[in-house]
Amino acid sequence: MRGGAGVRRRSSVRLSAEDVAAGYALACQTVVEGNAVVHVPPQEKIERRLVTDRTAAAVTLPFAYDPQRQQPVCLMPVRLEPPSMADQTDDWSRLKRALASAYGVSNLEADLNTLRNLATTLRQANWSVTAVVELDTWNHPDGPPRLVDLLPGKHSQPLWAAAVDIGTTTVSLFLVDLVSGKVATKAAEYNAQIRRGEDVISRIIYAGKNGGLPELQSLVIGTINELVERAAGRAGIRPAEIYKMTVAGNSTMMHLFLGLPPNSIRLDPFITTVNHPAPVRAAELGIAIHPQANVDSLPGVSSYVGADIAAGVLGSEMCGYSGLTLFLDVGTNGEMVLGDCDWLISCACSAGPAFEGAGVLHGMRATTGAIEEVWINTHTYEPTCRVIADPRLEAQGQPTPALGICGSGLISLLAELFVTGLIDKAGNLNLQLGSPRVRQGEHGAEYVVAWGHETGHGRDIVFTKVDIDNLIRAKAAIYAGFLVLAQSVGTDLALLDRVLVGGSFGQYINIEKGIQLGLLPDLPWEKFHFLGNTALRGTLLTLLNREYRQRIVEVAQRVTYLELSADNSFYEAFTSALFLPHTDLTRFPSVAELLAPHNTVQ
Amino acid sequence: MRGGAGVRRRSSVRLSAEDVAAGYALACQTVVEGNAVVHVPPQEKIERRLVTDRTAAAVTLPFAYDPQRQQPVCLMPVRLEPPSMADQTDDWSRLKRALASAYGVSNLEADLNTLRNLATTLRQANWSVTAVVELDTWNHPDGPPRLVDLLPGKHSQPLWAAAVDIGTTTVSLFLVDLVSGKVATKAAEYNAQIRRGEDVISRIIYAGKNGGLPELQSLVIGTINELVERAAGRAGIRPAEIYKMTVAGNSTMMHLFLGLPPNSIRLDPFITTVNHPAPVRAAELGIAIHPQANVDSLPGVSSYVGADIAAGVLGSEMCGYSGLTLFLDVGTNGEMVLGDCDWLISCACSAGPAFEGAGVLHGMRATTGAIEEVWINTHTYEPTCRVIADPRLEAQGQPTPALGICGSGLISLLAELFVTGLIDKAGNLNLQLGSPRVRQGEHGAEYVVAWGHETGHGRDIVFTKVDIDNLIRAKAAIYAGFLVLAQSVGTDLALLDRVLVGGSFGQYINIEKGIQLGLLPDLPWEKFHFLGNTALRGTLLTLLNREYRQRIVEVAQRVTYLELSADNSFYEAFTSALFLPHTDLTRFPSVAELLAPHNTVQ
Repeated sequence: MRGGAGVRRRSSVRLSAEDVAAGYALACQTVVEGNAVVHVPPQEKIERRLVTDRTAAAVTLPFAYDPQRQQPVCLMPVRLEPPSMADQTDDWSRLKRALASAYGVSNLEADLNTLRNLATTLRQANWSVTAVVELDTWNHPDGPPRLVDLLPGKHSQPLWAAAVDIGTTTVSLFLVDLVSGKVATKAAEYNAQIRRGEDVISRIIYAGKNGGLPELQSLVIGTINELVERAAGRAGIRPAEIYKMTVAGNSTMMHLFLGLPPNSIRLDPFITTVNHPAPVRAAELGIAIHPQANVDSLPGVSSYVGADIAAGVLGSEMCGYSGLTLFLDVGTNGEMVLGDCDWLISCACSAGPAFEGAGVLHGMRATTGAIEEVWINTHTYEPTCRVIADPRLEAQGQPTPALGICGSGLISLLAELFVTGLIDKAGNLNLQLGSPRVRQGEHGAEYVVAWGHETGHGRDIVFTKVDIDNLIRAKAAIYAGFLVLAQSVGTDLALLDRVLVGGSFGQYINIEKGIQLGLLPDLPWEKFHFLGNTALRGTLLTLLNREYRQRIVEVAQRVTYLELSADNSFYEAFTSALFLPHTDLTRFPSVAELLAPHNTVQ
Repeated sequence: MRGGAGVRRRSSVRLSAEDVAAGYALACQTVVEGNAVVHVPPQEKIERRLVTDRTAAAVTLPFAYDPQRQQPVCLMPVRLEPPSMADQTDDWSRLKRALASAYGVSNLEADLNTLRNLATTLRQANWSVTAVVELDTWNHPDGPPRLVDLLPGKHSQPLWAAAVDIGTTTVSLFLVDLVSGKVATKAAEYNAQIRRGEDVISRIIYAGKNGGLPELQSLVIGTINELVERAAGRAGIRPAEIYKMTVAGNSTMMHLFLGLPPNSIRLDPFITTVNHPAPVRAAELGIAIHPQANVDSLPGVSSYVGADIAAGVLGSEMCGYSGLTLFLDVGTNGEMVLGDCDWLISCACSAGPAFEGAGVLHGMRATTGAIEEVWINTHTYEPTCRVIADPRLEAQGQPTPALGICGSGLISLLAELFVTGLIDKAGNLNLQLGSPRVRQGEHGAEYVVAWGHETGHGRDIVFTKVDIDNLIRAKAAIYAGFLVLAQSVGTDLALLDRVLVGGSFGQYINIEKGIQLGLLPDLPWEKFHFLGNTALRGTLLTLLNREYRQRIVEVAQRVTYLELSADNSFYEAFTSALFLPHTDLTRFPSVAELLAPHNTVQ
């Protein structure tokens, strides 16, 4: 924030003298005392260019899609015998009779709002209509079927639905045709709740304030509605033509989405109101698809292993695999599941949002201007950066000036600093190397990633000791999670057959650098699989196939949750992991080998 | 309506010269051309003193009430094991587990709104709560059970519910404790829809106008909410403590109540949208009881034989009786059911609202000032009238001056005019009797029931030839209905074992006079039973006993509906009944005998 004369800074401890001179102030530490024009620096603004908008991988299903067998929502064109004095059957019974006779549908039900249009639609359509029927839901696998809508005339395709993943940071949506099973379009947007807190804890605290919960609910529903409208626009349909929505998210996101108070999630002993909510009508939530469409929430495991992880496990198909698999979802939190086809155990590490650029001085989200990869010359200590390009500048053949460093850039940078010897295993910067890049800054020692004349805002982009410590703590929490999970079932990370990395951020982790830091276990690279948004993929599978919808219930029930805060071994493992790559270097033989020539025993 | 100088009368054909001189105008025939003060004559205003408020008969049930066996809504006090790090089960699963263990309740469901308070209630109540559970509904007899509300602490009684009968004219309500099965209080109020039309046809037409349907729905829901509040006030509870409502009404009333367009009810071939709607939440309708309470609509038979008649048949217990029974509900319409324990046949006669005082010059509803019974001296032709007393005047020992004639008064008057020879069998007034009471008025011949100096408004109360013809048509329609029903099944009215008369108006018909007119079949008086509001009674039975709730579905399905407008024999029977008591006097032997001495063959 850049204030004017009308503001008083209560603290500027995180700002450089240069920043203060330029008029920068910390919004949370500033008192407005007169007229002020507020400028928000561009790297703090939410840009529309999202990770998932850049990477639209084709969706391949693990089954041959057969809507007749797998899909509970279907179109049923039918022609009714018009009423007469000889047959005064009411409209609703007449429709039920016709659908029973043509499709064997019995005990059909309908919401009152659906019945309100019945008389008019039947008569205007001259008794030839198409019923949109939802045959069953996860909690009523034997029905009764429900009439969601009645369309005039005969329709056999398409039939729209949406899969949604509510991330703490990003909300993503697939628009899918339930007749063909094809994803028509994708859309992603920052969760509008971000303005009320970066992570789940700050959201929970905000929800506890007066009016906070309804506000957070309406913010995320606003984001979903924006995505629905955008996706519908791309597909050339009206949002009201979407007849089902399946939603995953972490437990806090699901609570806020449904308007359930999340407070006890954050308080010992960390309890959700409900891990598997029943479907509700879109109208009840204010979701702007067909008002009588069901919005189906996927099941979570616990307060910190939510429906997104259950969907991720399902989407990654780790259950059906006999080898030992580690599934890792690095988002705003770090959640992980270890197991094979017989057992699954999970935990969540409060890694914090460091990998998303928060808590890091020049950290930012993965948008235009973010440094996403760094290489440091071993001799000159000069860095080469890859910046997420502005498409307009790119089109003109011009480079995009850097604004900050995003998560993958931070991992890359930290690993490079370590392997080049710029920092030691405790993360201390070596000020003796004679490089102007390493200097004493206002927040202690720092490494200059980009000089002011190269950046978009004219100020140096630096990486401080404080940033380094934050990142080391984050990676240590995640690795400690791996270790405790493995120990708790008496296995070893070296025995891992596969490491599946999900989460939209996950796919940008450089394996080599992740291992060098000690964030990822030291395994042959081919054992790592980057799956992208596994939560959204898993959600799509449950939307398309009622067998998968039942399977995710079993997954959520089968996953054992390990509460780390109640586990002493976690703190021990965390402390051991507070070094690069780890106190016990034997756990990282490939890194030990890499370090050997110039860095034998630190 | 009495207008001022600023109004122009387009027609005053129904007004006397005296009325015109006094400034009276017909609201529907008046153009306001300037400032006008409008006075509505008191007999047209809706008074709060209703039939059902005067007669609060004790409700006796045809079964020993056993809530354990008969009642789907129940209170379940339960103490939960608090969560801990060792048991992080979510609140909802924890509650379900406790209720399953204590009461064997499985697959419990809850609306999202109920879950919203779950975390707070459980913790504030220190894990000791009482679940309000609805175990089943008519359309889901095997459940799943649903948590309607969760109360802090331990509760075992009372548990409130309401039975409602929506009449075209009057809405009535019983407030009942589902634990004891006792009716705590009753309330009745005019249906606020009256201002938009007196009968179902005018309401249907109004509903078809822009905004008409939501207006009519909100009017009747406003009336119900008023009754709920009044009844709750009398019982000393909050309306939100009412956890279920069961509703009956004719098919048009049910459509308007639920916001379903009733238009096709009035158009050949007379079709409802739905005869048996599913339960809906009170919040969805705007009914001000507990928002998650179910509002259960009883089933109707057809467009003109509604849930009120099905409830009436159930409430009158005619199904279980082996003798031939005629059930008659005279309200704004005339509906009737003929049958025994093996079969039931019904029809509806558009008798019109004549018996409720509409379409009759000095007709009025049965409120203060209405003449409800008339005796005419055979020699002097002078009448003696009983007027519904104003309790304040009554307390002072003063008579209440008459304002008009209500339904029972009209029947009484017409019968007296006939048996005293003041009118002949075609309804023509005898102007040759030398009585000043019989005179030529502005609307043809008329009989003066009360002189202006005796009335509350200072004007003569008269009964005209037009009124007489309207009433004869109404009674002819009803009697023709009886006859056609009997003929259609090859039986005879003389074989009737019982005549059950329901409807709040029904109980005020004087049997003797009803027979004299040819409104009721000529049977020994002991065969007639006046049951009061059988619809409300039947509704109460279904609310109290799930077996009765299923039985009414069978009743509605078993009743064969005879569409009179498609039946030529009805017109014939109607024409024959357009005489007093009937063209075929052999059908009324007791009346023939009464007329014999002075009036052998008219």
